[in-house]
Amino acid sequence: MFGVPGDYVLSLMDEIVGSEIELVGTCNELNAGYAADAYSRVNGIGAACVTYAVGGFSILNAVAGAFAERVPVIVLCGGPNRGDRDLHRQLHHTLGDYGVQVDVFSHVTQRSVGLTSGDAAPDEIDDAITACVRHRRPVFIEVPADLVSEACRAPAPIDFDLHPVSEPDVLAEAVNEAAEMLAKAEKPVVLGGVEVHRFGLGEQFEALLDHLDWPMATALMGKSVIRETHPNYIGVYSGALSEENVRRAVEEADVVLSIGAWMSDIDLGIYTARIDVGRMIHAGADRVQIKRHHFDDVYLGDFIVGLRDALPKKSARAPRIEPAAISLFEPFESDPNAKITIDRFYQRINHFLGDQDVVLADAGDSFLCAGDLIMHEGVGFICQAFYCSIGFSIPGALGVGLADRDRRPVVFVGDGAFQMTAQELSTLIRSGLTPVIFLMNNRGYTVERVIHDGPYNDIQNWRYHELARVFGGGFACEVRSEGDLETALAGVLEHSDELSFIEIHLDPDDCSAALKRLGAALAEQRFS
Amino acid sequence: MFGVPGDYVLSLMDEIVGSEIELVGTCNELNAGYAADAYSRVNGIGAACVTYAVGGFSILNAVAGAFAERVPVIVLCGGPNRGDRDLHRQLHHTLGDYGVQVDVFSHVTQRSVGLTSGDAAPDEIDDAITACVRHRRPVFIEVPADLVSEACRAPAPIDFDLHPVSEPDVLAEAVNEAAEMLAKAEKPVVLGGVEVHRFGLGEQFEALLDHLDWPMATALMGKSVIRETHPNYIGVYSGALSEENVRRAVEEADVVLSIGAWMSDIDLGIYTARIDVGRMIHAGADRVQIKRHHFDDVYLGDFIVGLRDALPKKSARAPRIEPAAISLFEPFESDPNAKITIDRFYQRINHFLGDQDVVLADAGDSFLCAGDLIMHEGVGFICQAFYCSIGFSIPGALGVGLADRDRRPVVFVGDGAFQMTAQELSTLIRSGLTPVIFLMNNRGYTVERVIHDGPYNDIQNWRYHELARVFGGGFACEVRSEGDLETALAGVLEHSDELSFIEIHLDPDDCSAALKRLGAALAEQRFS
Repeated sequence: MFGVPGDYVLSLMDEIVGSEIELVGTCNELNAGYAADAYSRVNGIGAACVTYAVGGFSILNAVAGAFAERVPVIVLCGGPNRGDRDLHRQLHHTLGDYGVQVDVFSHVTQRSVGLTSGDAAPDEIDDAITACVRHRRPVFIEVPADLVSEACRAPAPIDFDLHPVSEPDVLAEAVNEAAEMLAKAEKPVVLGGVEVHRFGLGEQFEALLDHLDWPMATALMGKSVIRETHPNYIGVYSGALSEENVRRAVEEADVVLSIGAWMSDIDLGIYTARIDVGRMIHAGADRVQIKRHHFDDVYLGDFIVGLRDALPKKSARAPRIEPAAISLFEPFESDPNAKITIDRFYQRINHFLGDQDVVLADAGDSFLCAGDLIMHEGVGFICQAFYCSIGFSIPGALGVGLADRDRRPVVFVGDGAFQMTAQELSTLIRSGLTPVIFLMNNRGYTVERVIHDGPYNDIQNWRYHELARVFGGGFACEVRSEGDLETALAGVLEHSDELSFIEIHLDPDDCSAALKRLGAALAEQRFS
Repeated sequence: MFGVPGDYVLSLMDEIVGSEIELVGTCNELNAGYAADAYSRVNGIGAACVTYAVGGFSILNAVAGAFAERVPVIVLCGGPNRGDRDLHRQLHHTLGDYGVQVDVFSHVTQRSVGLTSGDAAPDEIDDAITACVRHRRPVFIEVPADLVSEACRAPAPIDFDLHPVSEPDVLAEAVNEAAEMLAKAEKPVVLGGVEVHRFGLGEQFEALLDHLDWPMATALMGKSVIRETHPNYIGVYSGALSEENVRRAVEEADVVLSIGAWMSDIDLGIYTARIDVGRMIHAGADRVQIKRHHFDDVYLGDFIVGLRDALPKKSARAPRIEPAAISLFEPFESDPNAKITIDRFYQRINHFLGDQDVVLADAGDSFLCAGDLIMHEGVGFICQAFYCSIGFSIPGALGVGLADRDRRPVVFVGDGAFQMTAQELSTLIRSGLTPVIFLMNNRGYTVERVIHDGPYNDIQNWRYHELARVFGGGFACEVRSEGDLETALAGVLEHSDELSFIEIHLDPDDCSAALKRLGAALAEQRFS
């Protein structure tokens, strides 16, 4: 549980400190929220604990991100004593209306509740936790300081294996129609999406894929739903942003079987995606769309299993497409004196990632570039490809590192994003974690320069690599050439028991080809 | 105008950059909000500009603080194109319901409006600005990206001299009754408050005080409403937290004339204040309370002027009380080898403050200690004594410095508060401002240690004084002894053309006597 203390929440924090839960203090509340979100993406659920108003409103943006991206996070928040509320006292941190926090959070959570009595608390808490798990969305629970020590009955056990429930007849009809359409397909493709991950359906999905033996792409949001060394995995699809062979495989397929994918602007390459809805089966968490009609109350997990049972094994009709993992076999030869560029950097990093790594790519060019990295067996890829709140990755690395100390967070973050939440580097060091952080210093908001430039896209340049020392330690260095990069990566291996911070100096106008295409598309959409 | 770019707001930012408004980029949105708030406290109104959702929700806590403390701030926020909304597209940064931001901000602003057409925009914008000025509260205006370039009629002129309006008969009755009560007083005292500042009534208030020649205290929220070298100013009153002579002057007065003061928990010394309501006249922005009855629709400014006209000049009955400024005449002799302590530090600083300084004291021991500093002619004192959101002071110094480059921000901030918003030190340097920052390093959340200690009150220790160099420059040093402090203050004077950052090393349990008293009071209230 990540949090920041404050007087209204100290009594609650005492209970947490005395429990089996580890309470991890962050520098501020927004960062606690990001850390809890990233923790949840690895371990299935996350939690944060903050004080009234000043803490609650500060964590709101992280909670909104978890809501948008369906990440289950429980936010506990202290509050004024009930007696003080009844007297309408002008207490510090308050705004006149004591209910304001619960109201505000009702807009960005599945459930927002203010506890009022020991009698009602067990049910109210259980309802909130259940809603959080069932819908994969954050919930908010406000706890008056004086309620913490009040007696209440023991709570009932909670079933954490919650998900939407299928109507059997609707499920059967949807599976039958989809199977019939797929059985006739000659050039099918599978599109794997984020909800496979959120509902823990990775195994079922991989079993379906092995059964069908069809080419499979993911959207950026769904990247790493299965290991990307899988022979059927061909790469990330997002319209005109995609590599050519992936784009053609998806757009020229006669049936696209989309399993848990989202159709957001970025996942659709800013609406440059050309998928004919008349050739599409689109299964979401609790609903299947075939062509232009919908089946409600069909749970994604049931649909995946149903399809596997209904379809013949290894259809010979599917075309063979070069697996994405082939890029791992392209040798990288370093040119020590060459200035480092974005393209060459990521080509090199593709060979650097290990089997236990979790990549965190911040919103911007970082996630577009990192989308082409190959995630090995068990490698995770975490980014906010839909909500896109920059600054997520540094506190996110804290969440990932504490969710599983055997996995190494590898962060790609631009300088603009880094400045948002830079202080949380300190908590990574304090917690004894060993992330590798690549700070891509291109002197400003490059993603926005490409969309639409102006003086607002320039930022103050920092001596970024010196921050680790200021915050307490770790290995840090600067990279200007390919030779520097090799030295830096050797240093990372030598210092595998501590945090590594590598500042990569880039030209301000160096960015991925994908970003240039995205920028043009966004600029056209925004200003047309 | 302070802000952070994002694609939905770039077209709006182009207009701002092309206007007379200076757009100042901050590291993140929360900090833009704090800077705008502090700017407003100096210049009367402030503004911020951010992008949709990720920006809006990130600035929310600063806006809530401005709402609680009645600081006029205009927040402009970009938003998706209107056409995309109508198509219900899944756009990045969105949450399904496009109206969610306007709804959330309606809870913490005087007016929250989403613009929809060029025809309606001029009136909607003017209504929001008028509400902001009249009520001294923040407002929120969401501007779809594609609306920015739409034609609209020229707006009507706005009257910025807005305030509540008195009902003449009610005003006359209230003034008469108050004057009658005050004319009989033998030991009256005046309590000056924050609303005198918010409604720009400093001159009228000082004229009343000179006319009456009675002793005058302020609550912490109202500190510096008039120059504290005024011979009638006796110090800060907040119940048991106050110095003894101030406490007795207020609590033993036969009439307390409260002008624009708030009765919050901290201003009342956590309800240790002992003021009999039967001896009190309490004038607020638009309402007067005498004893236990109220007069609605009485504007504070009219009441002040009315009282002055109704009361005789220089009542001889008021007792003489030693002015607070006497502390400026107590000599300070430095003991170079003595370890620096909180008490000695602030005694020394009282002699260091200059006539053009604006003190920013962050919530915690900083504002309790700094409350006893004497604000010279024209010296301002800024703190969030009611909303108490720690981390306000560093971005706040940015707002103060840019509001008036002739005034020097002097910041007192604890290490816990500093970590919240530390990156904005970078923008202070980038803007060429010359604040003096005293970082009070006592290794954690001291204010909470005193209330209720636990492991959550410990934080990571940084090499704070090295941060200025990392962020781009300035004068920085560490202080451990009284001798170090003299050297540091000499360095500040030598480097008056750049930022100064002084890290003061304190014992973790060194805090003001006032904080110990406050902590005991808070702990009792919270856990009794």
